[in-house]
Amino acid sequence: MTSSPTMAGIAVYPGQAGSIHRTTLPVPSPGPGEALVRVRRVGVCGTDQEIIHGQFGTPPPGTNELVLGHEVLGEVEALGPGADGVAVGDLVVTTVRRPGGCVPCVSGQTDMCADLAYTEYGIIGAHGFMVERFVMEPAHLIRVPAELERIGILTEPLSVVEKALQQAMLIQRRIPSWSPKTAIVLGAGPIGILGTLLLRSRGLNVVTVARRPGPHAISRLIEASGARYAATRAQSLAEIAAGLPPVDLIFEATGVADLAFDAMEALGNNGVLALLSLTGGDETKELPIARLNRSFVLGNKVMVGSVNSSREHFEMAVEDLGRFETLWPGLAERLVTRRIHGFDDPAQIAAEVEDGIKTVIEVG
Amino acid sequence: MTSSPTMAGIAVYPGQAGSIHRTTLPVPSPGPGEALVRVRRVGVCGTDQEIIHGQFGTPPPGTNELVLGHEVLGEVEALGPGADGVAVGDLVVTTVRRPGGCVPCVSGQTDMCADLAYTEYGIIGAHGFMVERFVMEPAHLIRVPAELERIGILTEPLSVVEKALQQAMLIQRRIPSWSPKTAIVLGAGPIGILGTLLLRSRGLNVVTVARRPGPHAISRLIEASGARYAATRAQSLAEIAAGLPPVDLIFEATGVADLAFDAMEALGNNGVLALLSLTGGDETKELPIARLNRSFVLGNKVMVGSVNSSREHFEMAVEDLGRFETLWPGLAERLVTRRIHGFDDPAQIAAEVEDGIKTVIEVG
Repeated sequence: MTSSPTMAGIAVYPGQAGSIHRTTLPVPSPGPGEALVRVRRVGVCGTDQEIIHGQFGTPPPGTNELVLGHEVLGEVEALGPGADGVAVGDLVVTTVRRPGGCVPCVSGQTDMCADLAYTEYGIIGAHGFMVERFVMEPAHLIRVPAELERIGILTEPLSVVEKALQQAMLIQRRIPSWSPKTAIVLGAGPIGILGTLLLRSRGLNVVTVARRPGPHAISRLIEASGARYAATRAQSLAEIAAGLPPVDLIFEATGVADLAFDAMEALGNNGVLALLSLTGGDETKELPIARLNRSFVLGNKVMVGSVNSSREHFEMAVEDLGRFETLWPGLAERLVTRRIHGFDDPAQIAAEVEDGIKTVIEVG
Repeated sequence: MTSSPTMAGIAVYPGQAGSIHRTTLPVPSPGPGEALVRVRRVGVCGTDQEIIHGQFGTPPPGTNELVLGHEVLGEVEALGPGADGVAVGDLVVTTVRRPGGCVPCVSGQTDMCADLAYTEYGIIGAHGFMVERFVMEPAHLIRVPAELERIGILTEPLSVVEKALQQAMLIQRRIPSWSPKTAIVLGAGPIGILGTLLLRSRGLNVVTVARRPGPHAISRLIEASGARYAATRAQSLAEIAAGLPPVDLIFEATGVADLAFDAMEALGNNGVLALLSLTGGDETKELPIARLNRSFVLGNKVMVGSVNSSREHFEMAVEDLGRFETLWPGLAERLVTRRIHGFDDPAQIAAEVEDGIKTVIEVG
C-alpha cells in the first residue's frame, strides 16, 4: 500500500485573522470530463486579503479550512476520459463562480445570481487555486495565447471590469444616440487600473482618481495609457468633474463607499455610474439626498452594481489583454509589482506592501 | 379697425409666490401646419404647485409672465393650411417638452435631453395650456378615443410612468431571464397611483406605500386595483420589503428624497429602482453608505432616474388608459377628486386640498 502523492497549498480558517498557513493536500486526478491543470501563477487580490484578515470566506462543506486563490494561470497537464475543449499544454485561466439554483444561474448568468447561493473557488464553499494542481471541467477553462503568458494572470480581475462595461453598454441601449466619450475611474488598485486601460483601449478620455498626488509608479502607469491621473487630496471629485466635458461613465473601484454617492453628481446627464467595490463595514455619511435624487431624475442617470463575471467576460478579457499589448507593449505587466515564489512563506502573502499594485505567487 | 379677440388664462410671475392670477391673451390662429385646439380640461400637478409657490418655472423670452398648465385635453377646432395627422373634432392631448440642440433631442428623445436646454409648455420658456385655445403642430398631438374623454386628462402623468417602466424594461434586457413579479410603489399621489395601476395591469404583485395608514379614499382606490396599500407610519419600508418575495421593481414617487435611498436596500437582487420625484430643497440624511453600496454591487442592482416623456410614452399611456377601463371600469376617474370650473378663481387652483389626489379645471 502506497500513500497518495501530496502537494502544497495556502489556506486559512475563515473568520480567524492570522490563520493563513501552508497546507498539504492530495494531488487530484482528473475524473471523466475533467482536465488536470498545473498551476503556474496565482494572483492575490483584495478579497484574498479580506479572507486572510478573517472578514470573509466560507470553507467547503465538511471542513473548517479554505484553500485560498481565485486568480490563476495554469497549464493543462492531463485530460480525464472524455474531456475535450482544451488540449494538454494549453495555457488556461478559469472562471470562479459556480451556479446555485436560481433562474439567472441556471440560465448561464452565474454572475447575476439572484439568491446568492453560488459557490466561488477560494472564497465561498470551494477550495481555491493556491495549490500546485487542480482539476476542472474544460467548460470553465479559457485558453490564453502563449504570447500573453506574462499577463494572463490579469484575466480574472479584468473580466470583472469587462462585465461592468458590458452592463453599462447593455443598459445604455435605452438611448440609441449614446456614445461615451469621457469617463472617470475612481480608484487606482488593480481594478481601477485595468478599468482605465479598458476604457482607454475603447478610445475614451479617462481621468483616474485616487487619493495620493503623483507622480509615482501608479500615476505613471495610468498616464502611459493616455489617461490623466488626479488625486482627491489635491482636488475634490466635484472639482475634477467640473473641469471635464459631461462625464458619460464612472467606474467606482476604490474599495470604500466614500466616493460612490458623490459620484452621482459628478456623473453627466444620461450617464452610468458602475459600482464595483464590495465595501465591507458599516460606514455612514451625511448626504444631500434631495440634490442627489434631483440630479439623477433630471439627468436620467443610472447607477448599477456589478459583481463577478462569467465565461464570456473572461473571453473578452483575454482578447483585451492582447489589445493592451498591441497598444502599450509591456504596460499591463507593470501591474505585477511583487512576485512570491512558492507556498513556503504564507506571511509574505498576507503582507501589505506600500506602493504595490498586485502580488502574484509563482508556482512550480 | 377691430381689436383681436381675447381669451382667459391662468398665469404666474415665476419666482413670485402668490402671483397666480387670471390673465387675458389673444386667441391664437392656426398658422401653416398647425392645429387650433379648444381646451376642455386642464390638470393641476405638483410641478404646477411648485411654480405657484415661486420655487420653479421660467417665463417665455420677452415677458415675466408664464401661463401655467401642461396636462391638457382638448378638441381640434380648426386646421391651418397643410396641417394633417389630426381632424377637426378629434380629442387630443399634447406632449410637453420641445427639443434643445443636444444629440438625444435631435434624435427624437427629448425626454433624454442631455444639456437641459429644452423648453416645456407651462413650465420652462413657453406658455402652457391653462387657456381656452392653443395652437400646436399635429406631430405633437396624440388622439384620445372618445370613450376615454373622462380620463384622457391623465395621459400626461401616466406617460411619465410609462417612460419609467419602459426604461426599466430596456435596462433589464441585460438579464434575459428577468421577469418582474413583485413591485413596490413609493408614494400615493397621482404618479404613485398611476404607477400602481400600470404595474397591476401588467400582472405584477404591487405594494403601494405612503405615510398615512388606511382605510381612506386613496387606499381604497389602490386596493380596488388588486394592489396592497401599506403605510410607513405603521411599518418601515424595510419591514414591508421583508414580508415580500424579492422586490424586482420600485417606483419612487413620493416627491421627497427621504425613502429614495432606503429603497436601495428594499430592492431585490437584479432589481431596478426608478426615481421619479424631482425633489426640491437641500434635505440631507445620514446613510449607511458601505451597506447600501455593498447591497447594490453584490445584487447587481440598478437605480435609474426618469423624467418627462416623449410622444411614444403618450401613445402607450392612451392605450393603457383603455386597458385600465377594461380591467377596472370607472376606477381611473376616481383620481380626479376636485373639479374647478373656468379660470375666474385662481386662488382655488393654488389651494391644497386634504385627501385630494388630482384637481382638474373644466374649461368652456
